[in-house]
Amino acid sequence: MNEFDLISCLSARLPAPPPEVVVPMGDDCAVLRFGDALWVATADMLVAGRHFEEWATPEEVGYKAVAVNVSDVAAMGAVPRFMLASGGADDVETTLGCMEGVLRACDEFGVYPLGGDTIRAAVLTVDVAILGQLAHAPVLRSGARSGDLLAVTGELGASAAGLLALQRRDTGPERLVKKHLHPEPRGNLGRKAARLGVQAMIDISDGLASDVRHLCQRSGVGCRIYLDLLPIAGDTQEYLRSIDRDPQILATTGGEDYELLIAAHENVVKELEAESDVPITVIGEVVRAGVVFLRNGEPVENLSGWDHFPGFEGV
Amino acid sequence: MNEFDLISCLSARLPAPPPEVVVPMGDDCAVLRFGDALWVATADMLVAGRHFEEWATPEEVGYKAVAVNVSDVAAMGAVPRFMLASGGADDVETTLGCMEGVLRACDEFGVYPLGGDTIRAAVLTVDVAILGQLAHAPVLRSGARSGDLLAVTGELGASAAGLLALQRRDTGPERLVKKHLHPEPRGNLGRKAARLGVQAMIDISDGLASDVRHLCQRSGVGCRIYLDLLPIAGDTQEYLRSIDRDPQILATTGGEDYELLIAAHENVVKELEAESDVPITVIGEVVRAGVVFLRNGEPVENLSGWDHFPGFEGV
Repeated sequence: MNEFDLISCLSARLPAPPPEVVVPMGDDCAVLRFGDALWVATADMLVAGRHFEEWATPEEVGYKAVAVNVSDVAAMGAVPRFMLASGGADDVETTLGCMEGVLRACDEFGVYPLGGDTIRAAVLTVDVAILGQLAHAPVLRSGARSGDLLAVTGELGASAAGLLALQRRDTGPERLVKKHLHPEPRGNLGRKAARLGVQAMIDISDGLASDVRHLCQRSGVGCRIYLDLLPIAGDTQEYLRSIDRDPQILATTGGEDYELLIAAHENVVKELEAESDVPITVIGEVVRAGVVFLRNGEPVENLSGWDHFPGFEGV
Repeated sequence: MNEFDLISCLSARLPAPPPEVVVPMGDDCAVLRFGDALWVATADMLVAGRHFEEWATPEEVGYKAVAVNVSDVAAMGAVPRFMLASGGADDVETTLGCMEGVLRACDEFGVYPLGGDTIRAAVLTVDVAILGQLAHAPVLRSGARSGDLLAVTGELGASAAGLLALQRRDTGPERLVKKHLHPEPRGNLGRKAARLGVQAMIDISDGLASDVRHLCQRSGVGCRIYLDLLPIAGDTQEYLRSIDRDPQILATTGGEDYELLIAAHENVVKELEAESDVPITVIGEVVRAGVVFLRNGEPVENLSGWDHFPGFEGV
């Protein structure tokens, strides 16, 4: 059983949703109707030793915990509005530092903190639950149709390259390290994409290979992804080659990009490009069935992203 | 700096609240207005080694994480409606067990799970963020006035006695152990209290001594609490005496009762008693200033409840 089986296992036990629930769990966020307004809700937790090591300051961890939730809200096309943060560490300074990072991110992303829980824990742990507001219909993972283009915002692989630099204690690639520690969720772009009427959207947190599969699975479609088209910055490529890693493979499997993967008609992609201040790159297309990654016209097998419980079987 | 100083420190940095915010953080829950409805929001986290030890099963921990949040919602007079749960352990069985406990509690308390995050962590950790709905104005901590009676629901000290039994591995007091592991938040009573117009309410999680201080501080009043009046069950008294602990002191300081402490006019307390299926016990009264605990007419000093960061100074 892996993380996604675990989620399926739990989802199967859900009661019938109350009338406020427009979209239950299973997308980047659940969607609720309160009065005339649509809201989205999600949560993400970060734990030391699992999501970060001692190279991340408590402030960076707190900041990132909010940013990754803002990315999920962006992937629905919503505006982040309110959040609750729970967490702590073994000493009050670390706990305070983490909560300061949370508040800095709240300020940065225009999210109002409603409270939470400060606790004492053996290792730094922080969970953020967020509420976002929709001005349009939510963009789900399930709307992709054969013939849509697949496009990504910004760049891929920089965060995973930055993580490698941190793990290897390489001090050169500072921009990549910053991409890893200080993600920039694509809030404005997510809302523009929703307004322009993209078909489907997901944020790339587990890695393109995993996240495009989630989108295809929910949409009942397949896709072709062209690794040669992936937007990988020059410094990412250079650093990865210097440590004998394949930039295209890492950009496909690395995770934590917090970019948006969008399925849309060609003209909608063009409109989004025209309105965007970051690059929008077409990396493939939606087909009827089969998730295929191609490089120089040849399929690349066995690409997968992050699994929180790899190698667990038998439950 | 203790936990409450830490919260004050963070609260001081809050931005101006958006128009939806009716009550910001600092009460049992924040209060929001969405359309014509009032909602409450809060979160509480449980971590192994801090809030429970190996004697709690993963299911019990997951259940309790929801129950303690339902208690906070009850203390505002609201109905629990939606929640997000994040957490996990080092193996998938423990994680699944915890999430099963979360879902069982959701079923028990009529809360609909919107999602969350399953993670891998060195020790079992679970955070629940909850949304509740109000049918009346929220009952705040700040409404107590000199002359109000102070009353508690149910019983005090049983959970703390159960915790001692778990720590000492005493197998006799099973009811007390169950009170600790499987709290029964007073949801119906909280809503009745709100409808009847009590002045102020708080749930007793950190211990009566701490929680009555929170209520008095927010209301700008004092109180007299008569330890001789505390509702302590016969088996709690018997067990505590058998291990040389003072039942009245433990019932004042022990924490995790998840009962409600209510400040109300005498006639409202009587109405609540008439409608309640658990005992409502008057334990003191609100006065202008000074929090005093009395036993046989004599003040008892140095009573305090749970502090998550005891003994930390200098921040």
